[in-house]
Amino acid sequence: MDFNSAVENAYAVGDPRNVVSVGVMGTARIARSHLWGIQGLEGVKVHAVASRSIEKANAFADEFGIPTRYGKYEDLLKDDKIDAVYIPLPSSLHLEWVVKAAKCNKHVLLEKPCAWNSDELLTMLETCRENKVKFMDTVFFMHHSRLKQISQQLANASLGPDGPTHVLSTFCFRGDESFFQNNIRVAAGLDKLGCLGDLAWYSIRIALFAFNWDLPETVSATYVIEKDGVPFDMNGSMLWKSKAVDGCGIPIVRSTMFHCSFVHAWQEDVLISGQDGTLAFEDFVIPRSTSHAPWFIRTNIDQTRKPSGMEWSFNQSEHNVGETKQERQLWQAFRNHVLNEDNKGAFWPGISLLTQLCVDALHQSAANHGAQTVVDPGHLWEKFTKLYNI
Amino acid sequence: MDFNSAVENAYAVGDPRNVVSVGVMGTARIARSHLWGIQGLEGVKVHAVASRSIEKANAFADEFGIPTRYGKYEDLLKDDKIDAVYIPLPSSLHLEWVVKAAKCNKHVLLEKPCAWNSDELLTMLETCRENKVKFMDTVFFMHHSRLKQISQQLANASLGPDGPTHVLSTFCFRGDESFFQNNIRVAAGLDKLGCLGDLAWYSIRIALFAFNWDLPETVSATYVIEKDGVPFDMNGSMLWKSKAVDGCGIPIVRSTMFHCSFVHAWQEDVLISGQDGTLAFEDFVIPRSTSHAPWFIRTNIDQTRKPSGMEWSFNQSEHNVGETKQERQLWQAFRNHVLNEDNKGAFWPGISLLTQLCVDALHQSAANHGAQTVVDPGHLWEKFTKLYNI
Repeated sequence: MDFNSAVENAYAVGDPRNVVSVGVMGTARIARSHLWGIQGLEGVKVHAVASRSIEKANAFADEFGIPTRYGKYEDLLKDDKIDAVYIPLPSSLHLEWVVKAAKCNKHVLLEKPCAWNSDELLTMLETCRENKVKFMDTVFFMHHSRLKQISQQLANASLGPDGPTHVLSTFCFRGDESFFQNNIRVAAGLDKLGCLGDLAWYSIRIALFAFNWDLPETVSATYVIEKDGVPFDMNGSMLWKSKAVDGCGIPIVRSTMFHCSFVHAWQEDVLISGQDGTLAFEDFVIPRSTSHAPWFIRTNIDQTRKPSGMEWSFNQSEHNVGETKQERQLWQAFRNHVLNEDNKGAFWPGISLLTQLCVDALHQSAANHGAQTVVDPGHLWEKFTKLYNI
Repeated sequence: MDFNSAVENAYAVGDPRNVVSVGVMGTARIARSHLWGIQGLEGVKVHAVASRSIEKANAFADEFGIPTRYGKYEDLLKDDKIDAVYIPLPSSLHLEWVVKAAKCNKHVLLEKPCAWNSDELLTMLETCRENKVKFMDTVFFMHHSRLKQISQQLANASLGPDGPTHVLSTFCFRGDESFFQNNIRVAAGLDKLGCLGDLAWYSIRIALFAFNWDLPETVSATYVIEKDGVPFDMNGSMLWKSKAVDGCGIPIVRSTMFHCSFVHAWQEDVLISGQDGTLAFEDFVIPRSTSHAPWFIRTNIDQTRKPSGMEWSFNQSEHNVGETKQERQLWQAFRNHVLNEDNKGAFWPGISLLTQLCVDALHQSAANHGAQTVVDPGHLWEKFTKLYNI
C-alpha cells in the first residue's frame, strides 16, 4: 500500500487566520482532560457541549467557560456555528453518532477505540468522505514533539542496517473498585473491547508507526483475564513477514509484542530494537512530565570478560524535547486537518483503520485460543484507498 | 506441588574444609567464561579438562593452569580424583554424557538447555539419583546476591496485596556471520531448541522464580524466525490460572511474556508487576557491572492533571548489591550442593525440570501456530517427586 503521500500531507498547516469551532458530545472524564489541556489554545474555540443530562452539560460548560449547552446530542449537531465535534462517547455509540455528525457536515475527532470492528469504522469513514468532513482519532502521542524526533532517528538506520525490527510495549494501569463496577471500559455493552480497545490501541499504533504504517501479516493474542467477554488483561504479538534477508542471510521478520492490562500497576514502556541498537522511553502514552520528555538510544553494545566475571556495556545517548503539551498539539493537528484541502485528509483516518484492522485480528485470535491469525484488509482497505484516492 | 522444603535446603552450606575436584568436559567459549570467572575460588579445584582434540584440551589447560588433560571424555570420567564434572557440550550430547558421568559417580553441573525434552532430562535425573550424585544447571543469575534481595522484596507484598502477577522479560543478542554459520546454538543437529533453549531458558526461569516455582497451566509461543526448525527469534507467554480473586473480585491470573532472539541488539530487561507497583532491572542475565547491581521499585503511581496537560508520577527507590561475582557464586553453590546430604538435593534438579517442562510446551505451541498449550507435568513431575521424596 502506498501511504507515503498521505503521511507527507498529514502535518500540513491550515490558514492561521481561521478558527475551528468545536462541539463536545459528552462530559466523560477523558473529555475533561482534553478541555483542561487546550484552554487558551489559539485557532480552536469550544462553542458548545452536549450531554443527555442538561445538568451535566451546564456543569461542564461552567467549568470550562463554554457558551452553549445542549441536553441532546442532536441539538448540538444542528448548531450551524459548529464546524467540528469531539466525541468521547463509549465505543458502542460511535457508529451512530459519527454517521449523524458527518451527515450534519461536522468534522469528527473521535475517542479510541474508534469502533467495535473495521466494518463499522469504514462505514463511518465513508459517511465522512461523502459529506466532505475530516476524521481523526485521539492518540495524543502521535502529536507529541518527541515522536517526530524519533521518526527521524528510526529513518537514519542508527538501530541497524535494516532499521527497527522489533517493538516491545507495555501499557497497564490498575483500576479501582469503582472502575471495575462502573467504568464504560469494562462494560460489555459499552466498550466491549476492554483493554484491547482502550490500551492495546496505543501499543498497536506505536508498532505501526515504527514500521512505516505497514499492516502486519499475522497476529496472536491471549486474553489473560476476561469478564463477560471483555478483556481486562491481555498480551498480543504481530508479525510483518517479508522476502528480504539481512546481512547474514537471515529472513527479516519485523514483529511487536505487548502487554496491556487494567489490573497491573501503571507502566507504559516502549523498547524499539534493531540489529545494532535499541531505542527506549518509559512514558509513551502520557508523559511523566510536560516540561521534559527524554528518550534513549543504546549502541555499541558489547560484552567484556573481566577477572571478576562477565559484564556488558554500551554507549547510551539521551535525547529529549523541552516543554511539550501533547493535548494542545493534538488539537492543533486536528484544526490543521480540518482546514486543509479535502484531498489531503487520508493519513489520520488511514491510521485509525490500520489500527482497527489489527484490533479485529487480535480479537479473533484471542477467541481462537491465541492461534496465529491472518490480518486480512481485503475489501476494507481497498475501499478505503479508493475512497481517498491513495 | 510442595517444593518449599526443597527451596529451604537449596542454599545449605557444605563443610568448608572439603574441596570439590572438577573435570571440565569440553572447551567451548562458555567454558572459558566459567573458568575465567572462578580462578582462585576456594573449595573448588579444576583437576582436569577433556576434549575430543587433545590439542584443544592442552591449550585450555595451559591457559587456566589445569594439571590433567584428556583427549577423550571417557578417560576423564575414569579419573577417580574427580568428584564432579562440568558439561558445556551441545544439548544433543547431554543425555549421553550426563548418564555416563552419573554412572561413573560424578556429580554434574550442566549447561542449559539441559535437554531436548523433559523425558531426556528425567532419564538423566534418574541416573543421577540412582548413583547418588547431584545435578545442577548453569543459570548464573540464580546465584547472584541481587536475586536473594529481590526474593525477599517480592515476599513482602510491596508490589500489591496479591504479590507479583506479571513478569515481562526480554533477552536478545545479535549474532554475527560466524555465529549463524558455525555456532552450535543455531545448528539443528546440536542445539535444535535455538533461542528457546539458549535464551528463553532464562526468561522462563525468572518467571518461575517470581511465582514461587509453580508450574504454569498454559503457554503460547510464536517462532518469528526459524531455520531448519531452529528458532532464531521468538516470543512466548505463560499463564498461571487460579481460583482466587483480588480485592475487586477480579480473578487472579499470573502471567509472563517474553521476547528472545539471536537477531536483535543486546537486551536483558525484566519488569515484574503487581497491582500497586513494579520492580525492574535491566541486566538480569549478565550484569552490566560486577561491582554494582541495581534494581528499582516504583510505587504510589499517580496521574496529575496540570494546566500544561496530563502527567504521571511515582516514588522510585533504587536498591543494589555491591560487588558480586555471579560465576563464583554459582560454583560455590554447586560445591555446597555436592557436599550436602543426599536428601537435600531436590531444588536444583527440580527447577531444571520445571524449566524444561515449560520449554516442551512452548515448543509444542510454536509447532501448533501459537495455540494455547496445556503444560502437563503428568507422570514426569510425579516421577521426580517420588525420586527425591518431596
